[in-house]
Amino acid sequence: MTQFSALDAKMMALAIRLAEKGQYTTSPNPNVGCVITDAQGNIVGQGWHQKAGTPHAEIHALAQAGERTKGATAYVTLEPCNHQGRTGPCSDALLKAEVKRVVAAMVDPNPLVAGSGLQKLSDAGVQVSSGLLESEAKALNRGFIKRMKTGMPWVTVKLASSLDGKTALNNGESQWITGPLAREDVQRHRAASCAILSGSGTVLADNPSLNVRYSELGFAKNEVAEANLRQPVRVLLDGRNQMHPDLHLFALSSPIVIINSQPNSAGFPEHVEQYQAQSNGAQLDLQDVMKHLGQRGFNHIWVEAGAKLAGALLQNKLIDELILYQAPKLLGDKGRDLFAVDELTQMQQAFELQWQDVRQVGPDLKLTARFT
Amino acid sequence: MTQFSALDAKMMALAIRLAEKGQYTTSPNPNVGCVITDAQGNIVGQGWHQKAGTPHAEIHALAQAGERTKGATAYVTLEPCNHQGRTGPCSDALLKAEVKRVVAAMVDPNPLVAGSGLQKLSDAGVQVSSGLLESEAKALNRGFIKRMKTGMPWVTVKLASSLDGKTALNNGESQWITGPLAREDVQRHRAASCAILSGSGTVLADNPSLNVRYSELGFAKNEVAEANLRQPVRVLLDGRNQMHPDLHLFALSSPIVIINSQPNSAGFPEHVEQYQAQSNGAQLDLQDVMKHLGQRGFNHIWVEAGAKLAGALLQNKLIDELILYQAPKLLGDKGRDLFAVDELTQMQQAFELQWQDVRQVGPDLKLTARFT
Repeated sequence: MTQFSALDAKMMALAIRLAEKGQYTTSPNPNVGCVITDAQGNIVGQGWHQKAGTPHAEIHALAQAGERTKGATAYVTLEPCNHQGRTGPCSDALLKAEVKRVVAAMVDPNPLVAGSGLQKLSDAGVQVSSGLLESEAKALNRGFIKRMKTGMPWVTVKLASSLDGKTALNNGESQWITGPLAREDVQRHRAASCAILSGSGTVLADNPSLNVRYSELGFAKNEVAEANLRQPVRVLLDGRNQMHPDLHLFALSSPIVIINSQPNSAGFPEHVEQYQAQSNGAQLDLQDVMKHLGQRGFNHIWVEAGAKLAGALLQNKLIDELILYQAPKLLGDKGRDLFAVDELTQMQQAFELQWQDVRQVGPDLKLTARFT
Repeated sequence: MTQFSALDAKMMALAIRLAEKGQYTTSPNPNVGCVITDAQGNIVGQGWHQKAGTPHAEIHALAQAGERTKGATAYVTLEPCNHQGRTGPCSDALLKAEVKRVVAAMVDPNPLVAGSGLQKLSDAGVQVSSGLLESEAKALNRGFIKRMKTGMPWVTVKLASSLDGKTALNNGESQWITGPLAREDVQRHRAASCAILSGSGTVLADNPSLNVRYSELGFAKNEVAEANLRQPVRVLLDGRNQMHPDLHLFALSSPIVIINSQPNSAGFPEHVEQYQAQSNGAQLDLQDVMKHLGQRGFNHIWVEAGAKLAGALLQNKLIDELILYQAPKLLGDKGRDLFAVDELTQMQQAFELQWQDVRQVGPDLKLTARFT
């Protein structure tokens, strides 16, 4: 088994921190960080990928290191690319810079190219290794990794409920179950996603904008400048063509994709696209919807939906992750439920999750769990 | 404001730890611990109250200290009693032992006697103070304190649900939503309560024993010997006289109180008492029920009930504390709810709680919250 030093771990941890700086801007590209150290272990270059179409992390770090790259070690959170991009393959850049050693946290998740970047470096005499802080690096790019491996996006369903699992009163009132800090947290998750998915029921009931509001990003304002803020694509499932141009979200010019079964001729603005998914009547085939969103290059879909769409995604096993904000309140049995699904008749049919994180966000609990 | 030293805090913390040792055995008495230090700050005596009718914590600690009590400091988690018990007032015992100083974490919660024990000591020339680690001491005896102040018991409602707030499938299947460690935790809570309260619906549906099983106490087995295990009184609310002697719980000889509106002549064994509460037809007056349970000397009622009784207690504002075990599972909207209450029509009507504790118990979350 490859051995790493404490210095290696420290440098890779730093590279991961650098990669995180790109979380609001790199979509559809992955978040990647790079640290370059000289033979004495001094940091001579740092970089991170900032935006698709701009230089990769390695290129930034090499540029900062300048002539000090000869004999250096490069720590990268993802295997250096080996394909022709706007700045040439990073593997070539590392070779040209005469680095002695390259340590990657993980290999390229695309099974067709995995390892080829490191192989090229190794063939040229560079010491290569991978797997250092791999799970941390993978967590950062879980959407990108899933899409590379399966073609499907990573799906996080966000819900907010009372302690007794109610999202709203029976009459639909739901403002505000959770507090302002939870809503701010939601803004950060929206900002880090490639697309925000909702259903026509929710959009018609709440008339939301489903955008990222810079003023509500809280501490993330230190991580991304307002000018660099990327608006995720808004994806609306509308099997029965209930959407109409007067809804708030169409007034904002960031891209919208309406997914329906038949074209909607209601006269939407130019930034609105439509896609006809496979369907059974008005019932959209959610598998096909997700496949389409993967083909569009969406790594990470952030779902804000009602019980019907959340339940349908659940039953179709299309949810990777659940983020549930729980307010310390009880709304009683007449309130609205989280997931509308067919009746279960045996406890073994329960949908099982595994905890990822439990923390308090203001007065609310934030529970993060993944499907097994 | 009274000043305390770091040594004072350390000794009181130890006294609280000692008091905790009585949590499974002292009912209806409070948990009390006592530490005695000599003039140099050396511990010369430790004691805790073990069982109603046996010596108080101070008496144990004084006995252990022997002749070293002269000029000593006594740390007690509750103001020393000033009434004639089987061993005489503790205030007299402390005077006789010629202690120089008495530090209490809290005064007697009974407003009619609060401060009189310390006053007597002070009048006799002993240095007295109170309030050191008071909130910790109060947490230990929240049931006793509430009953002393109001005549009503402290009510903890325990429930177990999925993440989407469902306690069972629609067909009633609920075994097992939570894991064995959560069930073990429930056994410890039962053991520390004065009475376990349930309703006829739950008893008829699940046919539980509602007792404490020593084998399932887990780490608490180190804190209480099997021979000392006290079975809480089982209290069953049965407005419609649905209980019958064939149910499992009547086969165990620990006391049972059936609370109904009319006497039930079904021929119950000798260890079963009945009490007729005020009622409106079959609808028991829960306020009267709790008042009665307070009069019986129950400090802390542990409720294991279905949505109907839990909801009725909630609406009657009779719940002090909610302990919710949440399994990382989803059961969907057809499952059974936690609290059956009248429909809320405004979010301000939500029942608000405050977090006390959030922790993982095996695979499950244990949420503890109190009503504000």
